[in-house]
Amino acid sequence: MIEAGIIGGAGYTGLELLRLLLMHPHVEISVVTSRRYRGRKISDVNPHLERFTELEYEDVETREIADRCDVVFLAVPHGSAMDYVPELLHAGTRVIDLSADYRLDRAEYERVYGRRHRDPEMEKRNAVYGLTELHPEVADATLVANPGCYPTGAVLAAAPVVNSGMVSRVVFDAKSGISGAGAEPSEKSHYPNLAENIIPYEVTAHRHVAEMRKELPLPHPKVSFTPHVIPAIRGILTTAHLFLAEEVAYSHSYTELESEVEAVYEQFYSGKRFIRLIKRMPSLGAVRSTNFCDIWFKVEENGERIVVISAIDNLVKGGSGQAIQNMNLMFGLEESAGLWHPGLVP
Amino acid sequence: MIEAGIIGGAGYTGLELLRLLLMHPHVEISVVTSRRYRGRKISDVNPHLERFTELEYEDVETREIADRCDVVFLAVPHGSAMDYVPELLHAGTRVIDLSADYRLDRAEYERVYGRRHRDPEMEKRNAVYGLTELHPEVADATLVANPGCYPTGAVLAAAPVVNSGMVSRVVFDAKSGISGAGAEPSEKSHYPNLAENIIPYEVTAHRHVAEMRKELPLPHPKVSFTPHVIPAIRGILTTAHLFLAEEVAYSHSYTELESEVEAVYEQFYSGKRFIRLIKRMPSLGAVRSTNFCDIWFKVEENGERIVVISAIDNLVKGGSGQAIQNMNLMFGLEESAGLWHPGLVP
Amino acid sequence: MIEAGIIGGAGYTGLELLRLLLMHPHVEISVVTSRRYRGRKISDVNPHLERFTELEYEDVETREIADRCDVVFLAVPHGSAMDYVPELLHAGTRVIDLSADYRLDRAEYERVYGRRHRDPEMEKRNAVYGLTELHPEVADATLVANPGCYPTGAVLAAAPVVNSGMVSRVVFDAKSGISGAGAEPSEKSHYPNLAENIIPYEVTAHRHVAEMRKELPLPHPKVSFTPHVIPAIRGILTTAHLFLAEEVAYSHSYTELESEVEAVYEQFYSGKRFIRLIKRMPSLGAVRSTNFCDIWFKVEENGERIVVISAIDNLVKGGSGQAIQNMNLMFGLEESAGLWHPGLVP
Amino acid sequence: MIEAGIIGGAGYTGLELLRLLLMHPHVEISVVTSRRYRGRKISDVNPHLERFTELEYEDVETREIADRCDVVFLAVPHGSAMDYVPELLHAGTRVIDLSADYRLDRAEYERVYGRRHRDPEMEKRNAVYGLTELHPEVADATLVANPGCYPTGAVLAAAPVVNSGMVSRVVFDAKSGISGAGAEPSEKSHYPNLAENIIPYEVTAHRHVAEMRKELPLPHPKVSFTPHVIPAIRGILTTAHLFLAEEVAYSHSYTELESEVEAVYEQFYSGKRFIRLIKRMPSLGAVRSTNFCDIWFKVEENGERIVVISAIDNLVKGGSGQAIQNMNLMFGLEESAGLWHPGLVP
Repeated sequence: MIEAGIIGGAGYTGLELLRLLLMHPHVEISVVTSRRYRGRKISDVNPHLERFTELEYEDVETREIADRCDVVFLAVPHGSAMDYVPELLHAGTRVIDLSADYRLDRAEYERVYGRRHRDPEMEKRNAVYGLTELHPEVADATLVANPGCYPTGAVLAAAPVVNSGMVSRVVFDAKSGISGAGAEPSEKSHYPNLAENIIPYEVTAHRHVAEMRKELPLPHPKVSFTPHVIPAIRGILTTAHLFLAEEVAYSHSYTELESEVEAVYEQFYSGKRFIRLIKRMPSLGAVRSTNFCDIWFKVEENGERIVVISAIDNLVKGGSGQAIQNMNLMFGLEESAGLWHPGLVP
Repeated sequence: MIEAGIIGGAGYTGLELLRLLLMHPHVEISVVTSRRYRGRKISDVNPHLERFTELEYEDVETREIADRCDVVFLAVPHGSAMDYVPELLHAGTRVIDLSADYRLDRAEYERVYGRRHRDPEMEKRNAVYGLTELHPEVADATLVANPGCYPTGAVLAAAPVVNSGMVSRVVFDAKSGISGAGAEPSEKSHYPNLAENIIPYEVTAHRHVAEMRKELPLPHPKVSFTPHVIPAIRGILTTAHLFLAEEVAYSHSYTELESEVEAVYEQFYSGKRFIRLIKRMPSLGAVRSTNFCDIWFKVEENGERIVVISAIDNLVKGGSGQAIQNMNLMFGLEESAGLWHPGLVP
Repeated sequence: MIEAGIIGGAGYTGLELLRLLLMHPHVEISVVTSRRYRGRKISDVNPHLERFTELEYEDVETREIADRCDVVFLAVPHGSAMDYVPELLHAGTRVIDLSADYRLDRAEYERVYGRRHRDPEMEKRNAVYGLTELHPEVADATLVANPGCYPTGAVLAAAPVVNSGMVSRVVFDAKSGISGAGAEPSEKSHYPNLAENIIPYEVTAHRHVAEMRKELPLPHPKVSFTPHVIPAIRGILTTAHLFLAEEVAYSHSYTELESEVEAVYEQFYSGKRFIRLIKRMPSLGAVRSTNFCDIWFKVEENGERIVVISAIDNLVKGGSGQAIQNMNLMFGLEESAGLWHPGLVP
Repeated sequence: MIEAGIIGGAGYTGLELLRLLLMHPHVEISVVTSRRYRGRKISDVNPHLERFTELEYEDVETREIADRCDVVFLAVPHGSAMDYVPELLHAGTRVIDLSADYRLDRAEYERVYGRRHRDPEMEKRNAVYGLTELHPEVADATLVANPGCYPTGAVLAAAPVVNSGMVSRVVFDAKSGISGAGAEPSEKSHYPNLAENIIPYEVTAHRHVAEMRKELPLPHPKVSFTPHVIPAIRGILTTAHLFLAEEVAYSHSYTELESEVEAVYEQFYSGKRFIRLIKRMPSLGAVRSTNFCDIWFKVEENGERIVVISAIDNLVKGGSGQAIQNMNLMFGLEESAGLWHPGLVP
């Protein structure tokens, strides 16, 4: 059994790791930390975990966590993960960081997040960006930078045609359930503010666009991104408006384009267990509670735009599930271990 | 024009007073207070009021408010209203208190709300309980204790048959939109906690039961009450399970009972502008944004129970609308002035 | 492996059986019927099942189904199940009927459902009412009448204190997600009708009350029941207002009552895997996608009423999950096989 | 008083006309038609209108309707309106058509709607496109083609900068409440399908794009449009991604661009009563039940894109309210008559 630790086990990301890891056939959870709930039974704080764990929340030294774990999941805020990573790696523990701290290079990180990166060795850590469908080198990583929820849905939607060189401009218009904003009540999560509404935010400057631009090799800044919160708990539906390069749009018939786009997607995702190219419009229900990314696309009749729709569960493929998928690969397990079940429909 | 003031104009009750009074044909709003937003334009804080008022939130002495107003609405928390009432009344201003401070007698208030009542003259104020369908003496009041939202829906549902002596036990099971919990984000109003859920709370001991028992002359404690919050913004649907007194249940045929109950309701609410006895199941939509209380009832086939369903908008008939209805009567206006429009359906 | 068949595999009950049985470690699904979708791949009709089954919907003779199955789940409308049961049992196949056809005795069934029961041998079938927490004889059954969703939540909430003789009247006020109304669009499931609303229906005469009265040995008609649909997909929260018998209420102190009620529940549900007596208010989230029934109770301060709140997922413990729980017991498997995972929170 | 008729008074558009016209100070409703409900009291079918009208639904000849009305609102499906318009206009009745039948020229209509236009004189009718903020000639019209809901939100968001020549490409990503799909239950409006989801549809080919392209003078096909249905009853939030022409983007500093864009909007909408350029993010609540279009914009930091967010109530400014606004202008009334009230917040 793999001994796993969760640092930051009381937020939604930590709880989702718990929900999934408690059922994982090859994992034993050895430590879960929370300063706020230190000493309390996890299942007292979270009644849905009653009968699944007798563990208590702890607040212990990083060194001790390292000693007790083969792998540690960091489910802490951006800016905090870098305080744990050096010591954990030094002790030989593998680390999957669900924060943004190791996703970008130093300069870009400091520009985007507006803070200094305090890990002097960050470049030498060789963190692998944990979107494993694009980065199979995850399997050899000791430190994985687990992708942001929005970049996961967006990059998976657009990567095949962007990589094929067909596309000259990408506009991502994303719609997320509110669980992405965390477990703390806020103006945005206040029911009367969100119900019967949809809330655009950080419409031109959400930090996740940096990950998208890094993963999609288009000349900067041809990738635009605008996120919205919808009245839903889980899920991100991304509408990707992909504009074809002129030379592509005008040198192909509509039918040729359709076939080519289809071929590009089929080939790019061939053998990927968690990518489903589906014939019907994706829904958040079909991926709810799962690690799937469902993708659907349509070439516009005038041959100028491809609309790609992707659906993920923001807490699973967009967070904790993808982290476990990465763990599976790092430890030589079946990629889908602990992650293989149908979506919660209805 | 009636000069009206609102003390506490930034919460949902105050905002609803603003929404309605700004359109009232005989009212001019002269002062709106808020400590938090003092000095800011009301419409900057609340964009839906843009173009409807140029007023700013103020934070002024009670005496000055009295000078500038014919009537003052108190939209402050329980326990605060009693700090304003004496001075306002002393200055000759009429007061409509939307808090609980003058709804019960002193002893009951202190027992239920667990605090001392600081107005030494409270009994002499002759506050009238502002459920005007049962208390037409509102018209002569200088101080109105505007009813709680739950008692409004519950008492209106049950009063006719309770007053007729037919009923020996009442169980109110109420379902409220979350706006009743106010504008401040909280655990209960956190979207992921309320969506796809329904939250019972204070299931045996909600303070509003005291008002219900006062208004429904059944031997204590034959009135039971359990509230729930539903995933909705506005509205209270009350399911009243009324158990017939044995002598009634067994001395009438089902058809006789049905006719008698119908006659009792028709007579009790004859001429009441805001009570609609409807033939179809009430819905929160049909009363949304209105001052109506829609009522429907059915005698159980075994002749033992009457189920009465009432629907109100908790912020209108359950709060600010009822307050304005009371104001209309106190000032000799048409009862429905500023309150007469259909529900927002769909 | 147990070979299982599902008759009626395209409705919500059938889909939920599929979702759960496809992951069951000891079950292989051998046939799924649907007249409407005959010949179509199940995963084409239901994209959330993509990659989990290659089966097609079939429309075959009952006899053939019996030949191919060790157990058959009937997920057909009330009144249709009785057309399959005789032949399936005759062929030696075990049957779990999720319809109402074998839950009541003949006379009661014909009275409540307003139709003749066409199985001449219905009484001899010895159908066991599949609320296994009350009916452990499920283990020896060949025909299980799987309980209705409302009776499951209601009976589990009230049975301990009713059986203890403490209670003289029960009022169930139940709130259900709309998935209980099925996969076909209807007036009630029309989004603008249900959102921002709560819909009472069949308020005095829902057919499920017959099951409740059968399972709760109180003098008829002391069990009242009123259902509502809430704006939620899954889950039933039942508010049980239990009135103590006078001799109980007045012969105990409040503290004694509290202790006694707690003891009654603890003892009644001792060792029951899927009943959780929890200290915090139940939520539909904590049981979402699970077979648990979470129960919480509080004695009213005046010693007259106990309010019990139960929460289930209507499609799992209130339907398909309970059916699988019954199958597990009938085949000597671990009761929780294929059913053991935490609720989907948030 | 203006005598007004509604043809098609049982759908959401017709009901919204009723809700608003019943309160209009200068209108008397003289006839409301519905084949389905002919002869039934309007308020029996729609309890929210109880006490507001004693009218019955009728099913009468067009000629008679013309005789009884000064203006007729056509709230019938696309393709039906053209059967009423000729006779109504011939009789001298003014017509406001809420269908698409007179919004486009004949060729475009027949291409987009895939049906022949049966009014041989359609071109001579001189229908005015009723987006009065862009088409003040509405005041002189006898036939108004009331705009589609999506084009209203989209065109109002983009028109100022498109008309100024600053923009070379427009991507509208719109999110609508489900009431736009009408009162009939459907797969899309089925609560379990829409709740906890967001549904893209007709992602490259929604018919409303034709209106947008007509109103926004960009070289075809530089206007892209993708609609989604969100889990909400009312409202459309449009996210307009406007890409600046290269010569504009690179010849201005960011600050210059910001000022210029602001000036363009301020000037374009100067004096428009129902357009509010607001400083905070628009919400569907702030416009709920109103005829306002709230608009907010932000220039992207890299100077390439302007994101404009507009919010309307799809049934009011996106339909029946705009129709009444047009009526007001056609009859020389105050533009806001019967339409002036704050949004329903919360």
